Amino acid sequence: MRGNSFGKMFSLTSFGESHGPAMGVVIDGVPANLDFDLTALQSELDRRAPGKVAGTTSRLESDIAEVLSGIFEGKTLGTPIAVIVRNTNQKSADYDKLKNDYRPGHADKTTQLKYGIRDHRGGGRASGRETVSRVIAGYFASLILPQVKVKAFVSKLGPFAYSALPENLNSSFGPYSYPDTTKNDEIKNYLEDLKSKGESVGGTVRIIVDNCPVGLGEPAFDKLKADLAKALLSIGAVVSFSYGLGEEMANMTGSTVSANSSSFGGMEGGISNGERMVMSITFKPTSTVGEKAKEGRHDPCIIPRAIPVVEAMVKIVLADHFLRQNAYAI
Amino acid sequence: MRGNSFGKMFSLTSFGESHGPAMGVVIDGVPANLDFDLTALQSELDRRAPGKVAGTTSRLESDIAEVLSGIFEGKTLGTPIAVIVRNTNQKSADYDKLKNDYRPGHADKTTQLKYGIRDHRGGGRASGRETVSRVIAGYFASLILPQVKVKAFVSKLGPFAYSALPENLNSSFGPYSYPDTTKNDEIKNYLEDLKSKGESVGGTVRIIVDNCPVGLGEPAFDKLKADLAKALLSIGAVVSFSYGLGEEMANMTGSTVSANSSSFGGMEGGISNGERMVMSITFKPTSTVGEKAKEGRHDPCIIPRAIPVVEAMVKIVLADHFLRQNAYAI
Amino acid sequence: MRGNSFGKMFSLTSFGESHGPAMGVVIDGVPANLDFDLTALQSELDRRAPGKVAGTTSRLESDIAEVLSGIFEGKTLGTPIAVIVRNTNQKSADYDKLKNDYRPGHADKTTQLKYGIRDHRGGGRASGRETVSRVIAGYFASLILPQVKVKAFVSKLGPFAYSALPENLNSSFGPYSYPDTTKNDEIKNYLEDLKSKGESVGGTVRIIVDNCPVGLGEPAFDKLKADLAKALLSIGAVVSFSYGLGEEMANMTGSTVSANSSSFGGMEGGISNGERMVMSITFKPTSTVGEKAKEGRHDPCIIPRAIPVVEAMVKIVLADHFLRQNAYAI
Amino acid sequence: MRGNSFGKMFSLTSFGESHGPAMGVVIDGVPANLDFDLTALQSELDRRAPGKVAGTTSRLESDIAEVLSGIFEGKTLGTPIAVIVRNTNQKSADYDKLKNDYRPGHADKTTQLKYGIRDHRGGGRASGRETVSRVIAGYFASLILPQVKVKAFVSKLGPFAYSALPENLNSSFGPYSYPDTTKNDEIKNYLEDLKSKGESVGGTVRIIVDNCPVGLGEPAFDKLKADLAKALLSIGAVVSFSYGLGEEMANMTGSTVSANSSSFGGMEGGISNGERMVMSITFKPTSTVGEKAKEGRHDPCIIPRAIPVVEAMVKIVLADHFLRQNAYAI
Repeated sequence: MRGNSFGKMFSLTSFGESHGPAMGVVIDGVPANLDFDLTALQSELDRRAPGKVAGTTSRLESDIAEVLSGIFEGKTLGTPIAVIVRNTNQKSADYDKLKNDYRPGHADKTTQLKYGIRDHRGGGRASGRETVSRVIAGYFASLILPQVKVKAFVSKLGPFAYSALPENLNSSFGPYSYPDTTKNDEIKNYLEDLKSKGESVGGTVRIIVDNCPVGLGEPAFDKLKADLAKALLSIGAVVSFSYGLGEEMANMTGSTVSANSSSFGGMEGGISNGERMVMSITFKPTSTVGEKAKEGRHDPCIIPRAIPVVEAMVKIVLADHFLRQNAYAI
Repeated sequence: MRGNSFGKMFSLTSFGESHGPAMGVVIDGVPANLDFDLTALQSELDRRAPGKVAGTTSRLESDIAEVLSGIFEGKTLGTPIAVIVRNTNQKSADYDKLKNDYRPGHADKTTQLKYGIRDHRGGGRASGRETVSRVIAGYFASLILPQVKVKAFVSKLGPFAYSALPENLNSSFGPYSYPDTTKNDEIKNYLEDLKSKGESVGGTVRIIVDNCPVGLGEPAFDKLKADLAKALLSIGAVVSFSYGLGEEMANMTGSTVSANSSSFGGMEGGISNGERMVMSITFKPTSTVGEKAKEGRHDPCIIPRAIPVVEAMVKIVLADHFLRQNAYAI
Repeated sequence: MRGNSFGKMFSLTSFGESHGPAMGVVIDGVPANLDFDLTALQSELDRRAPGKVAGTTSRLESDIAEVLSGIFEGKTLGTPIAVIVRNTNQKSADYDKLKNDYRPGHADKTTQLKYGIRDHRGGGRASGRETVSRVIAGYFASLILPQVKVKAFVSKLGPFAYSALPENLNSSFGPYSYPDTTKNDEIKNYLEDLKSKGESVGGTVRIIVDNCPVGLGEPAFDKLKADLAKALLSIGAVVSFSYGLGEEMANMTGSTVSANSSSFGGMEGGISNGERMVMSITFKPTSTVGEKAKEGRHDPCIIPRAIPVVEAMVKIVLADHFLRQNAYAI
Repeated sequence: MRGNSFGKMFSLTSFGESHGPAMGVVIDGVPANLDFDLTALQSELDRRAPGKVAGTTSRLESDIAEVLSGIFEGKTLGTPIAVIVRNTNQKSADYDKLKNDYRPGHADKTTQLKYGIRDHRGGGRASGRETVSRVIAGYFASLILPQVKVKAFVSKLGPFAYSALPENLNSSFGPYSYPDTTKNDEIKNYLEDLKSKGESVGGTVRIIVDNCPVGLGEPAFDKLKADLAKALLSIGAVVSFSYGLGEEMANMTGSTVSANSSSFGGMEGGISNGERMVMSITFKPTSTVGEKAKEGRHDPCIIPRAIPVVEAMVKIVLADHFLRQNAYAI
């Protein structure tokens, strides 16, 4: 009830402050007898790790997944799976100056007002490090729906804009998850320049889902679009969600919209229709700007690192709804 | 688990097919000893009733609220409040032609695929009539937070666009909920013209919330913005959600965003900060177009009728989060 | 969160005060395409109706089930099923004297303390009439597990005690649900004598479940025995629960217990093992005694009327756990 | 949905197999700003540790609590509190012989049938070690209701029976939690004798709660007695629950019962009435008997070690219901 759990049949409970002993997650609802591959899980975590992307944070933490339960001889047991990641690079002293410095747009002030106390070191619970729990859970969600392909990519980042849906979904889009990889050097320079100025930038991420089973989503309130919106808006910096034609719909007539089934982004009546799903979300610029942002650990743009988090949240929603639908197939 | 309930502490369970005996809702979690006013409840229902707005559906149903439980001598008992609205104008025969006619973008096909059966008459459970449950629950939510002002209005409808935040929130914006009421005749003509063509149109609704208590919203997953997004995307025709500066954030730098606290739409870190909340949602055009849409009962634009539904969903989320936060104030 | 819902996948929400307009229930989680038989549902309701058992209440209400949603052309739609029963025999005036008269062992005083308000007419929400919601839901639960046989019977009622497990589970045990039907006249006389004295009596009910699927029950907290205990203790007058050898276990050694698999009452490790399940519950005497109890509407012993309620709660738990287990069968 | 979470506002999620890396628990719903005392938490864990009670298991594990999150500078943060206990004494080889040896009355067989896989080493998830999660959560529950006194004691263990309610609730009842501590040597001899015979024994525990707030418990389904029954039946070896006069009620008349308010065990209508609460539960004998039971690690009677688990579950239920009730006090 304090909001640290997500999902009903595939349910994860997240814990950890960024400068406490560890981040972690307990996932209850992974079916038994699925093959577990620690290397694959670690690869997912590495995708969101800092220090890998030029122009982004240099903390160089290595997030090592430690599985505490739920796995036996390489298989899921059907029991809760607990995984922790130790926080190894806790230079708390660096953060003491933030104790009474509430960053605009960040959880600093509201956390203090809500609880009357907070761990001010690096954002505490509101840190982006919380998303390791989501990436871990996303790995297990993909075990349930291995055929579903979820691909997120950067469609806008500062001056860089990619408006089409890319073709080659199976190839990597590189460190910036930008489909036109010929722009990588330009993006790198752009981000380094932002960093030197103590500046940050927002952007847009699009998500494509192929091979989603038909019939996922529960009217009236747990429509698939509603749960996807919640999942994605629960990511710290996300400020908008749309699917299908999204905001363009405001300017369109019914006959135009209805003429093309892709208008509906793979969902009709809030239920998946088996077609390609397309969603779009906006990230705001990160909150830390000015001199503080020039220090090592701050990202001028978090979006590239957020891509695996976005994909994980979508996978979690789909796995959860798949199990929900499956329950009633008697 | 079939998605017909919403909210945790203030929880509503909705039921009813559009052409079954009745629509209804059970609300569990209304505190005891609050004053109940049937007339006020009925007024809210009347706001979403068809047949009141020129250019919209002429079904002329009168949705009469019948309270079955939870009220005693004008007060809430703290027990579940059940309210039903009979379906009085069920011309099922009109709909038989729809039995095998799946409207694009509507729940017809996906409902059939999901359940293997459906009540095809007028959309059944997926009908807009389901929203009476939300309006009823919204009334009770407002008893919990009477000081909070939730105002939704049309900011875009076809060629009509109102980009500012209106000043006079306490006055009615008329039958189209459009702040510039001098345009009412033009809108009326526009909608009647659409109707005559068997056409429909989408639009945008903005929502302002004033006097929201500080500290509502539960990290990590039940952030206030996440639950608001879910609540609003759970409305049938809504295809996007944003708050604060929304999609504009994609083009902005951190220093620009941080310079103005209104950028964040009243929520920081997913928790209400006590400032004005601003949200925006997009409605797609309604699914029924062509000859069918020229028949009496179809709306060329459902947005004006959806306004009380939008306001209700926001009130429900706020009341739910208020009770959740209150639980821990020991 | 106010406790009026039960079950996770097969979920019912109950509402209604005994002297309000209606009792009712919304059941969310009934799979689609199951055959619905209104006559069978009504029969279950009739089993708990007053006025049928000599010696019990003479209110002579007829509880008529009215289905408001979720059924179409004789089939379940997979949408929420709402059923109400009007309260037709509300002699509220009879109860006014109870306004400030808190019956020992009844909810009168605690309801007032908890909510600061109550509907004092006939117990309001705490009335035994609330159990109509359970009987209705039990009918729908039995559609999910038609092969499972749940039989409850009176094993103790005042001086009457039946310690064996009866053989003929398919036959009716008559108005008192007592397996030795040759005692019916004696029981009738006993109850009439109690009534004339303004007295009430407690008793014991045993429950046998045959053909329960293997594997129902979720460790650690939602063990089948735990959810059955909760379900049965949620019935107003029930004060104890045991299964298998129950309290006798306190006096036994492990080798004795292990020698007979029936010791475990069909559940090992909190999970059904496919063998016969046996449970036992105790009912306390009803709270109304003395002159008031001599009036027409009070039961000297509620147990015979509670039998269908007991069976319903067991069916609900089993259906819920069946759907939960089914969700993970991928 | 796989049953590893308990509580709604005070919610714990348990994980861990007995011979995996660690046991643990995440508690979401502890209010912020409460004082945390690691020594006090460890003391609770020590009470259930094996190797302390003569006649019980000699595994001599030391269960060391490691707090991973939710605590900062000696205070609760209001964020999820994760605590783990490493499994240090995992002689898995000893258990290999149990791989295909299903102990009667234990989860071995049903776990295999339910999941199609199990960790057979020492019971895996079904091991009594899972109860460390409950004891840890119970400590945090007591921070919420520090004034409530929950005392469990052995009222029956083999030939030893203590039928009264003891007076001196604040004193320790020694290693066997038996109120007549003059019997300690006799109990020790009795248990050692059982052990040498490869035998086990069941027993009865009574629970007294003093100073419980008035008004806890949510009709209709989450009555306090129902949630207490579930909580206690969720403990592996518990086979019965009763409260107040319990089974004796079956033989009593309403006037006798009503003459003494203590008949109702502190709950009327399923809601706490502020009086002393009294409950009783039965433990079956442990499942391991014969030659295996003579080996070091098996308890002839688990009840003394279960006492802190029983107390913890009661505290958890009360804390959860207290927060639930508090939510609606607006």
